[in-house]
Amino acid sequence: MGIAMIVPAIADAVAGHRDWATFAASSASTIFVGGTFVLSTAGGPIQLNLRQAFVLTTLSWIGLSAVGALPLAFSELGLSYTDAFFEAISGLTTTGSTVLVGLDQMPPGILLWRAMLQWLGGVGIIVMAIAMLPYLRVGGMQLFRMESSDRSEKALPRAAQLASATSVAYAVLTLACVIAYSMAGMTTFEAVSHAMTTVSTGGYSTSDGSLGHFENPAIHWIATLFMVLGALPFVIYIQAVQGRRDLVWQNSQVRRFVAGLVLAVLALAFWLWLKRGEAPLDALRLAAFNVVSVVTTTGYATADYGQWGVFAVLAFFFLTFLGGCTGSTSGGIKALRFELAAVVIRNQFQRLYQPHGVFAISYKGQRLSDDIARSAMSFIFIFILAFAILGLALSALGLDFITAFSGAATAIANVGPGLGPVIGPAGNFSSLPDGAKWMLSAGMLMGRLEFLTVLVALSPMFWRDW
Amino acid sequence: MGIAMIVPAIADAVAGHRDWATFAASSASTIFVGGTFVLSTAGGPIQLNLRQAFVLTTLSWIGLSAVGALPLAFSELGLSYTDAFFEAISGLTTTGSTVLVGLDQMPPGILLWRAMLQWLGGVGIIVMAIAMLPYLRVGGMQLFRMESSDRSEKALPRAAQLASATSVAYAVLTLACVIAYSMAGMTTFEAVSHAMTTVSTGGYSTSDGSLGHFENPAIHWIATLFMVLGALPFVIYIQAVQGRRDLVWQNSQVRRFVAGLVLAVLALAFWLWLKRGEAPLDALRLAAFNVVSVVTTTGYATADYGQWGVFAVLAFFFLTFLGGCTGSTSGGIKALRFELAAVVIRNQFQRLYQPHGVFAISYKGQRLSDDIARSAMSFIFIFILAFAILGLALSALGLDFITAFSGAATAIANVGPGLGPVIGPAGNFSSLPDGAKWMLSAGMLMGRLEFLTVLVALSPMFWRDW
Repeated sequence: MGIAMIVPAIADAVAGHRDWATFAASSASTIFVGGTFVLSTAGGPIQLNLRQAFVLTTLSWIGLSAVGALPLAFSELGLSYTDAFFEAISGLTTTGSTVLVGLDQMPPGILLWRAMLQWLGGVGIIVMAIAMLPYLRVGGMQLFRMESSDRSEKALPRAAQLASATSVAYAVLTLACVIAYSMAGMTTFEAVSHAMTTVSTGGYSTSDGSLGHFENPAIHWIATLFMVLGALPFVIYIQAVQGRRDLVWQNSQVRRFVAGLVLAVLALAFWLWLKRGEAPLDALRLAAFNVVSVVTTTGYATADYGQWGVFAVLAFFFLTFLGGCTGSTSGGIKALRFELAAVVIRNQFQRLYQPHGVFAISYKGQRLSDDIARSAMSFIFIFILAFAILGLALSALGLDFITAFSGAATAIANVGPGLGPVIGPAGNFSSLPDGAKWMLSAGMLMGRLEFLTVLVALSPMFWRDW
Repeated sequence: MGIAMIVPAIADAVAGHRDWATFAASSASTIFVGGTFVLSTAGGPIQLNLRQAFVLTTLSWIGLSAVGALPLAFSELGLSYTDAFFEAISGLTTTGSTVLVGLDQMPPGILLWRAMLQWLGGVGIIVMAIAMLPYLRVGGMQLFRMESSDRSEKALPRAAQLASATSVAYAVLTLACVIAYSMAGMTTFEAVSHAMTTVSTGGYSTSDGSLGHFENPAIHWIATLFMVLGALPFVIYIQAVQGRRDLVWQNSQVRRFVAGLVLAVLALAFWLWLKRGEAPLDALRLAAFNVVSVVTTTGYATADYGQWGVFAVLAFFFLTFLGGCTGSTSGGIKALRFELAAVVIRNQFQRLYQPHGVFAISYKGQRLSDDIARSAMSFIFIFILAFAILGLALSALGLDFITAFSGAATAIANVGPGLGPVIGPAGNFSSLPDGAKWMLSAGMLMGRLEFLTVLVALSPMFWRDW
């Protein structure tokens, strides 16, 4: 993080903005603190036990957010530390909820730093998913393991190799996105900033108008494409490069995710054409961009879909929960879990009217272990419970119905904007009370770490018998 | 049903209201049609296969609602058949959503018939749960079997005996409620009408003001008590009479349901006292009555809790989903399923940091079969999915956000009132478009029959290979 801060420091120095010093000082402090940690633990490999690994995972995301907030807090924006922390954790978790207004006039360092937080958070979550969470056996990541690294479709033999190959895929995708945005008419700075927040499905923009600022259909279509690419399991890119394209097409999660997206886009485009009188192609573009933005948990906007009528608002509310594929940068419940739930329910149906039949619950031709099925269902249950508790807590702070309701959903699904006039796609989070910002920060963190990683350390059982 | 209609016919005749003829004619037609069915199928026991039993269960609830709507449609209320059917199915499913306004001025026959629909629906659902659904192996009812009739705590040996003992318990409870209401100051007619809709957790009233019409705290506390009693598993009453009180206290579903209720009531009472300045005892009564009314899926109101602030509204929205205990007259997801989900999730947690431990998932000291755990989790998933689909469909008809959202929830959970100015506790369903009424009717039916019973017959697989 400390080294990364040198980039916005340079950007501000080049632009002649005095916040370069803020970034430089933050960088120095961060490198100093981090260096102390490294030195004090130097000398031989560290053996973490499982419980330490859990606590460390959660603490490192909190620590990185705390440090990432430093340049925001000490810049000339004059943010409170609460706002700075909210902005940083919203960035690192690739959520994209913002408390900043007046982005279009901001110095390049701040804008670049926000984009970098999301980009680093995006690669962080994939690498963590591959290297750390399978070891922790956290629900979603067991699914991810099943999805990406069981023997039959193993892409690369070892976790470390897989992690670095994925990082390369991530970088290449980002570069392709930069080039595409530039060719479509963005400045290099805009292209780089947006590419970093598109591929990471983060959603920070350099303009208050988000991508709606660019009145250029090509840019919207490019963003739509790369948001989808960022929400696919990254292992398929490695498989594709290795010439295993058959595996990519066999990936049922990918197929069903894309099919579901197309369905939702067509339904909403039809609605916009029928009820709001949009021209067919405009309706398709608006629907595709905004549906993809919400489902991939990016959170860009080209229009205030809060104005599209109740059906659209309600549809966007439910879409908030879905999420992309496991093993991607997106949040939410994720397509694989819905797939597994559907398998379990289908099996329930068969048993109902053929009670003497024996139905193994299978997925991709393999028997689905009860553990995996239960883990997927539990996750959905915990997700909805967390949403309800967070929504109630926010409303107890005095937030209005739609803000509390959609704020809770957008935070735990790591989407970004909520619904309604305050935090909707045309609003932002700056006016919320500090308590709400801390609660939403906690929600983002829990959603990003798939709940169990965080919650397990909060259970009294966890701390017994060390 | 035909015979039951004679009661309101007599009531109207005694009151000198000409709708007695409507009830008499409806009764005659119903008895004639029903008699034809009985005669045409007379001659030896009928062997139903499993699929026929599924179809028959769903069709009989639809058929009874269609017939129960007749006196409402042909009375001098001048209801459309849509409205009459909505009112009848809302009654039989013990939901309690109403399209009628001006209840206080209505003839006794109509009021009594509405109450009887709920009372019959209530006993119908319990008897069906004991006699029919275990045979169908529908999710919730397998749970009910586990809860009530596994060997160790078998209350009565055979389903038929259990069904008739339950009916007796139901009748005794209703009678006790009639007496309590009368002693607290209701007229006999009011006491009978409300007792029938209290014990069945139905919620129809003889007044537009629901129980708020009676400005009498004793009546509100009596209603609160009997709503809770109606939402407990009826098998515990039989156990209590048999002197097996130990089994009643060992019933963890009952303990946790009551504990959860107390918690929710205290939280909301505290809120009313703190934020709305209610006197402590009034706050407790208001909170207890309205929370119990929603959680037991009764749907009476003593106040428009839509005016209690966002926190309360959101709390009531989430409470809508909970439901009472399995084996009772209440709807919703039900306490046992939450208990089972909690067991599964607790198990997930233990596995996380003790990956080498072996944890059998147990409930009440018995190993919980994966089938039961999955069935509980699937049910919750289907419930939420049905809610989302119904909410979207209602909003596509042009309903506003809060009406579509809360209407979908209140229908499938069989609660009664929704939230917001239109269908909230102070409103009613009369102004909704016909399409919405049919959709809500379908939602009530699906919720009442625990989804699978209805949905299984809609799957193409079901109709293959007869």
